[in-house]
Amino acid sequence: IKEDDEKPLDPIEEQNKKRWVLIRAVLGEMLCTFLFVYVLCATSANFIRLNSPANPVVGGLSTGFAAVALIYSFADVSGAHFNPAVTFATCITRKTSITKGLMYIGAQLVGSVLASLILLATFPGNFTDGKNAAAAVAIAPSSDANIGNAFLTELVLTFILVYVIFAVAFDTVEDSVKTKVVGKSSSNNLTIYTTSGQTKAGFAPIAIGFTLGFLCFLGGSVSGGAFNPARVFGTALVGNNWTRHWMYWIADFLGAGLAGFTQKFFSSSRK
Amino acid sequence: IKEDDEKPLDPIEEQNKKRWVLIRAVLGEMLCTFLFVYVLCATSANFIRLNSPANPVVGGLSTGFAAVALIYSFADVSGAHFNPAVTFATCITRKTSITKGLMYIGAQLVGSVLASLILLATFPGNFTDGKNAAAAVAIAPSSDANIGNAFLTELVLTFILVYVIFAVAFDTVEDSVKTKVVGKSSSNNLTIYTTSGQTKAGFAPIAIGFTLGFLCFLGGSVSGGAFNPARVFGTALVGNNWTRHWMYWIADFLGAGLAGFTQKFFSSSRK
Amino acid sequence: IKEDDEKPLDPIEEQNKKRWVLIRAVLGEMLCTFLFVYVLCATSANFIRLNSPANPVVGGLSTGFAAVALIYSFADVSGAHFNPAVTFATCITRKTSITKGLMYIGAQLVGSVLASLILLATFPGNFTDGKNAAAAVAIAPSSDANIGNAFLTELVLTFILVYVIFAVAFDTVEDSVKTKVVGKSSSNNLTIYTTSGQTKAGFAPIAIGFTLGFLCFLGGSVSGGAFNPARVFGTALVGNNWTRHWMYWIADFLGAGLAGFTQKFFSSSRK
Amino acid sequence: IKEDDEKPLDPIEEQNKKRWVLIRAVLGEMLCTFLFVYVLCATSANFIRLNSPANPVVGGLSTGFAAVALIYSFADVSGAHFNPAVTFATCITRKTSITKGLMYIGAQLVGSVLASLILLATFPGNFTDGKNAAAAVAIAPSSDANIGNAFLTELVLTFILVYVIFAVAFDTVEDSVKTKVVGKSSSNNLTIYTTSGQTKAGFAPIAIGFTLGFLCFLGGSVSGGAFNPARVFGTALVGNNWTRHWMYWIADFLGAGLAGFTQKFFSSSRK
Repeated sequence: IKEDDEKPLDPIEEQNKKRWVLIRAVLGEMLCTFLFVYVLCATSANFIRLNSPANPVVGGLSTGFAAVALIYSFADVSGAHFNPAVTFATCITRKTSITKGLMYIGAQLVGSVLASLILLATFPGNFTDGKNAAAAVAIAPSSDANIGNAFLTELVLTFILVYVIFAVAFDTVEDSVKTKVVGKSSSNNLTIYTTSGQTKAGFAPIAIGFTLGFLCFLGGSVSGGAFNPARVFGTALVGNNWTRHWMYWIADFLGAGLAGFTQKFFSSSRK
Repeated sequence: IKEDDEKPLDPIEEQNKKRWVLIRAVLGEMLCTFLFVYVLCATSANFIRLNSPANPVVGGLSTGFAAVALIYSFADVSGAHFNPAVTFATCITRKTSITKGLMYIGAQLVGSVLASLILLATFPGNFTDGKNAAAAVAIAPSSDANIGNAFLTELVLTFILVYVIFAVAFDTVEDSVKTKVVGKSSSNNLTIYTTSGQTKAGFAPIAIGFTLGFLCFLGGSVSGGAFNPARVFGTALVGNNWTRHWMYWIADFLGAGLAGFTQKFFSSSRK
Repeated sequence: IKEDDEKPLDPIEEQNKKRWVLIRAVLGEMLCTFLFVYVLCATSANFIRLNSPANPVVGGLSTGFAAVALIYSFADVSGAHFNPAVTFATCITRKTSITKGLMYIGAQLVGSVLASLILLATFPGNFTDGKNAAAAVAIAPSSDANIGNAFLTELVLTFILVYVIFAVAFDTVEDSVKTKVVGKSSSNNLTIYTTSGQTKAGFAPIAIGFTLGFLCFLGGSVSGGAFNPARVFGTALVGNNWTRHWMYWIADFLGAGLAGFTQKFFSSSRK
Repeated sequence: IKEDDEKPLDPIEEQNKKRWVLIRAVLGEMLCTFLFVYVLCATSANFIRLNSPANPVVGGLSTGFAAVALIYSFADVSGAHFNPAVTFATCITRKTSITKGLMYIGAQLVGSVLASLILLATFPGNFTDGKNAAAAVAIAPSSDANIGNAFLTELVLTFILVYVIFAVAFDTVEDSVKTKVVGKSSSNNLTIYTTSGQTKAGFAPIAIGFTLGFLCFLGGSVSGGAFNPARVFGTALVGNNWTRHWMYWIADFLGAGLAGFTQKFFSSSRK
């Protein structure tokens, strides 16, 4: 509103500010992935200890509630991807630069590994078969599912997730709003989506969070239901379980990429 | 805001744009019905495999969460009916043209059949009694319920669904807003509801999604709880189970039509 | 926007319009109570038939989801009380006239009885001990709870419900908005709360709906957990179960009145 | 809008008004903590009586739904902390004065004790092992968890809660808005967050409420899952169970403080 706000920063100051915004985004992505993966793993470990038949139900509720809360909390900081497949889809549709995408994926993997380590520290004793807590909640395909079943399940689930994210979070930023946001952050590399009630995007964390919730109900008995390679990586490393680990990267990236381009087709106006 | 935006398009360009908006809407309706039916069927198949007593509860949660997310995602593209009974109600209350309504219903049936086929590909082996996955989650009335019970259950459930949709999604578009939307899409055949936080309709996907969720809790033990002929059609075809299939079309359309006119009565201002 | 909209109606026309708004409100209150009570009873009957241990959990989810959807749907028509205790609280705090309050309570009782009758028509056969469906879901205090336990439970639960309703739905209508609404409806008897995203009240149906949801988890094993005399009345009449029926009226009205005055204390500005 | 609204109050009048706003806030904090703790304890006691395996699931749902509703109801009155750890974090980050913080914590403890007493009055008879209702729902670490597990669990859970609260409720009040609010309340001691749909903070009660919900799923089998010393204190006093009571104060305050400063780091603009 005041004129001073609009005046251009001097080049060095602006350079420093851009760097700070990027560093903050990468650290934020690490923190939110850490929290998200911890919530998922701790829920599962807790209900294994409670020996509760409700485990697959509560997994979806916990994931959904946590995603809603964490997306509202970190959307302004990093965009709250917490999933390499999501970051990949934003890269190939040119919403994120390759450099920043790689930094994000690195941060997500570090966050996931830290979450698995804290899991060991917060849960006592050994789980069934002498497993540690991370091994007990590691993700692997079901033994009676063939690789085609599991691969396709992961692909479809990640497709749904990324389609919803793109449709509700990116597609609603109108040109005028975009300009304003870009002008504020001084960087068009950043994927900042607004979370005000003014636009559809205000509800985006609810739509995306609920999606992460119901996706947990669909494929657990087939592929383990990850739709997130970072989630798989943390417990794979700390729990030493690498069963078909490659599949979660290939299938999830494929589903994510497909969703990105499909949504782009539907969002085009063809004027 | 700029004057150029307001200037009329030349007739041929406008014609092409209208056609593109319609094609996109029909394809979008097919995609969102595909995703919605897949989520419903996969949830059920997954919990059959997990042998979980939570199956009827999680069905409602998964349906509710998925509906919220998919309506936010597809409302701008097709209106996100994903149900022939809803499309029928919008036709008889003149919110959708007959031609477009028929195209929508066709797209919904194709989407549902594709979902049932992908279900076969993502789930391994045979279910109880050598059924395939689509047959295992096909919908049919309970054997101890007479046709009157089941018919009335379907009618009441679809009435509730369509009443809520009409009350929260259509009734709140004020005249001034409507004009603007119509001017933008160049077609008054389209049922576009806004999803911004400015109007009650911003919350419409939450209200409608939660409705689809709780409806799953009401009639499963009587009519199978479909309130959507497209949901029934896909698994009927792929799972080869046509038990009382006609009922889901007649009862659901009757309930939907009744709801459309009842809501019209309450929304009239009688000036 | 147009000048014509602002010009005063002639007295007879205005009189007719006020009457129509009132009739519509009373009929709307009947319809929404009918739908709400049907959802509650059908959920319970359905899970009795499914013989599911999830019954007390799903009752809360179904009630919560239904309340969110129905309040968004009927707030503009009748205010969506669907509970005589709520109407009573709005009467004694002068938000509703006595005449209109009595008409509302009558409409709620009729709606509840109709819901119980439709319940008989939609559910097959007899329930345990030869009960009909309405008797099977009728509400009564637990046999091991003394009258003090049950009375206080009902009082506290209704207190919570009414406090939340008053705090989120009525307290946020600012003076300027109120004037506008009153001018539109030509009647200050009507309790219309806005449901746009502009004010806190846009979220009111979510806050109130979730409250109705969690209240179902608190007192079922003590008082039966009604916090709504209309809910109790319908199944009492059709299922012929009048156990301690008076209690639900006295305790719920007491709790509601107490909440109304407590919230008034907190909302006063004491300028 | 009117000029009179803007004119400064005379000093004594303003002094009285500030005092009234503070008294109302402290009483409001007592009432909302009373309601919140009652909901948590009554849910647990009710499902113990129903002998339901769903107890750990329904605890999270009830907590989440209640938090959403109560934060919308009391945000304008007291800020709706209902947790000494939250109040502590607002004190050390200078959002609340020490005096007011101590009054809040006192009010929260009184509210929690009253809730435990009402719990005894609403629930009949004795629970397992002759415990009273408050003792039956008292919180203590699991016997197989060492103090390190339990302490770290409480710390992490409270960290998550406070981080989300700070990120969604405080960080979004822009300077211009803040000034307006302060001018209205005549006190910069008050932490008032707006709950309109205009800003991200309109969704804050949903994000925070869902967080309180999913946190219930994470640590019940280890630390008892309190992340709120007031919740522990009420049932400890009335149920006479002081097992490791100190831990809930130290670990929760530590986690809360850490979260407050971490979020401050991420919210800084470093201009």
